[in-house]
Amino acid sequence: MEKVDQSIKEYIKENIRTVNDFPKKGIQFKDITTLLQDKRALELTSYMLSKPFRHHNIDCVVGLESRGFLFGTNLAMDLNAGFVPVRKPGKLPAASISETYALEYGEDSVELHKDAIPENARVLIHDDLIATGGTAAAATRLVKRLGGEVVGYSFIIELSFLEGRKMLEDSTQIESILIE
Amino acid sequence: MEKVDQSIKEYIKENIRTVNDFPKKGIQFKDITTLLQDKRALELTSYMLSKPFRHHNIDCVVGLESRGFLFGTNLAMDLNAGFVPVRKPGKLPAASISETYALEYGEDSVELHKDAIPENARVLIHDDLIATGGTAAAATRLVKRLGGEVVGYSFIIELSFLEGRKMLEDSTQIESILIE
Repeated sequence: MEKVDQSIKEYIKENIRTVNDFPKKGIQFKDITTLLQDKRALELTSYMLSKPFRHHNIDCVVGLESRGFLFGTNLAMDLNAGFVPVRKPGKLPAASISETYALEYGEDSVELHKDAIPENARVLIHDDLIATGGTAAAATRLVKRLGGEVVGYSFIIELSFLEGRKMLEDSTQIESILIE
Repeated sequence: MEKVDQSIKEYIKENIRTVNDFPKKGIQFKDITTLLQDKRALELTSYMLSKPFRHHNIDCVVGLESRGFLFGTNLAMDLNAGFVPVRKPGKLPAASISETYALEYGEDSVELHKDAIPENARVLIHDDLIATGGTAAAATRLVKRLGGEVVGYSFIIELSFLEGRKMLEDSTQIESILIE
């Protein structure tokens, strides 16, 4: 299976486009829209995301706005779990809690509905990409404040030179399809 | 099957929460986060979305940011199609086209990558909810400008008193799981 997985990863990688200088000069943006457009790449990405967590009894997949919504519900269905969105400020309609995280300049925050995570729920946090890890770490704090247990993280792409992994829970399983 | 579909629709409806006065006073917001949290409602919604379009040879599902991303990729996979996001201004990294639509006060716009829709592709447009239809109509114009054919629209909820259906293509199939 090692060789099959390697071929799948190569196919996924070939379908991700790098756009230079987006959103600002000097950044090489990983564009997954080319991957989404290709129905085979879509299927294979979905397969690779759920594979490591099939036997982890996940109760909720938490997806981060907005690209974490793309595979989040599908991942939840594959794992027989519910889906919970973490959103940018002011988007969730019911009572919510909020966590702030640092940006290169300034800060930003993310929100979670207060009734979204059952006590002791086993949670998998998903986003398309992990860079510095600030958003995923803030999402982790939100889940823990509601009594959930973060048992894993699932990403399509990990930008390892930004060391986002260090921001996440030590004891959890962190799975990225591609590590750049 | 009529009675089964009716039961499924009732279950879906029971799992959607109405939040009063969001995002502003007087609006009854349809909150699908409660539906997403419930793994059975998630499965049944996914089933009901794809069902009417299984034999339509859809090439691309176009999902509207950001709640149209939640079921969009899953719907694409169920229909053996690719997925294409329509996004808010400035979010797409590569060359894009834009369409403007009217809001209650002022206007807004949506964007689509220029290389997202193959010539003559059969397109299904998806969002969680259709209200006045402005966004779905703008998405339709984007798809047609690139040479795609809109063969259907797929929504979870249709607010029929806002008559959004009138804004869409006459000749296409418009499917909403729940019509309120």
